[in-house]
Amino acid sequence: MKNQQAIKLAAICFGILLTVISAFAKEKSTAEPKSVQEIRRVLELQVAAWNHRDLEGFMKGYWRSPALTFYSGGTIVSGWEETLARYRNRYQSAGKEMGKLEFSDLKVELLGPAAAFVRGQFHLKMDSSNSDGLFTLTFRKFADGWKIIHDHTSTAP
Amino acid sequence: MKNQQAIKLAAICFGILLTVISAFAKEKSTAEPKSVQEIRRVLELQVAAWNHRDLEGFMKGYWRSPALTFYSGGTIVSGWEETLARYRNRYQSAGKEMGKLEFSDLKVELLGPAAAFVRGQFHLKMDSSNSDGLFTLTFRKFADGWKIIHDHTSTAP
Repeated sequence: MKNQQAIKLAAICFGILLTVISAFAKEKSTAEPKSVQEIRRVLELQVAAWNHRDLEGFMKGYWRSPALTFYSGGTIVSGWEETLARYRNRYQSAGKEMGKLEFSDLKVELLGPAAAFVRGQFHLKMDSSNSDGLFTLTFRKFADGWKIIHDHTSTAP
Repeated sequence: MKNQQAIKLAAICFGILLTVISAFAKEKSTAEPKSVQEIRRVLELQVAAWNHRDLEGFMKGYWRSPALTFYSGGTIVSGWEETLARYRNRYQSAGKEMGKLEFSDLKVELLGPAAAFVRGQFHLKMDSSNSDGLFTLTFRKFADGWKIIHDHTSTAP
């Protein structure tokens, strides 16, 4: 009788253990690495800033360096200041609108402890027209967080 | 007299040492890391294969995986086979020509021991027309060498 109780108790303990282990395993398999979450957060903040017409806030996602590069269609822009100027000219100058920005189908892939790249799609809804396209972002991790060091954007020709 | 000779000898030795050190330093500053050279070689082989109308050879630069992605303008192609099919359709089907391919302004940047990205321009001279544009390639190092895992290509709209 005592043996049977001991076996029952052991079986219950084993069952609980299995449940706990599988719960941990499940969490581990679904949770994204911290770096991936941080990069997603940079992009979320960019979209939020854009939709508040805050271009300086939007530009916080980019590496503040003359070595930042922005490839769009067939055009190369080099430098953080120049990239901001391009955005200002295209979306905040007379007669221009910023519209509502959305990113979709984001694929964040780590390339090392301090590097990653992101594939995604952008959708910009404006009063006058819509703009949709693809982007590839190269990220590096700096002391003040993950920053885009290179942006390649394209739309259907 | 003996002292003077010793000082002279020391001065000569110091001069030789400086020359040797500066020669080494110069070599180190101009020579590219081995990984960068290997990646440049992948691209050189791609261009050579293209200009021999060898699309399979050209495709050796790409990761042979369904996870390879190719972003061009507003279009996503996923998979090595699908990317090859796209090239065949665009450049080897009836009435199409491959032309003469050149890459320029290549910037190879390592992102870790087994990852890198390349910024560059392509120039495709065909009988009927020319095509020029920009590309960003993400590379990973595999057992069989450096391979493009993602290609983002765009031309002026």
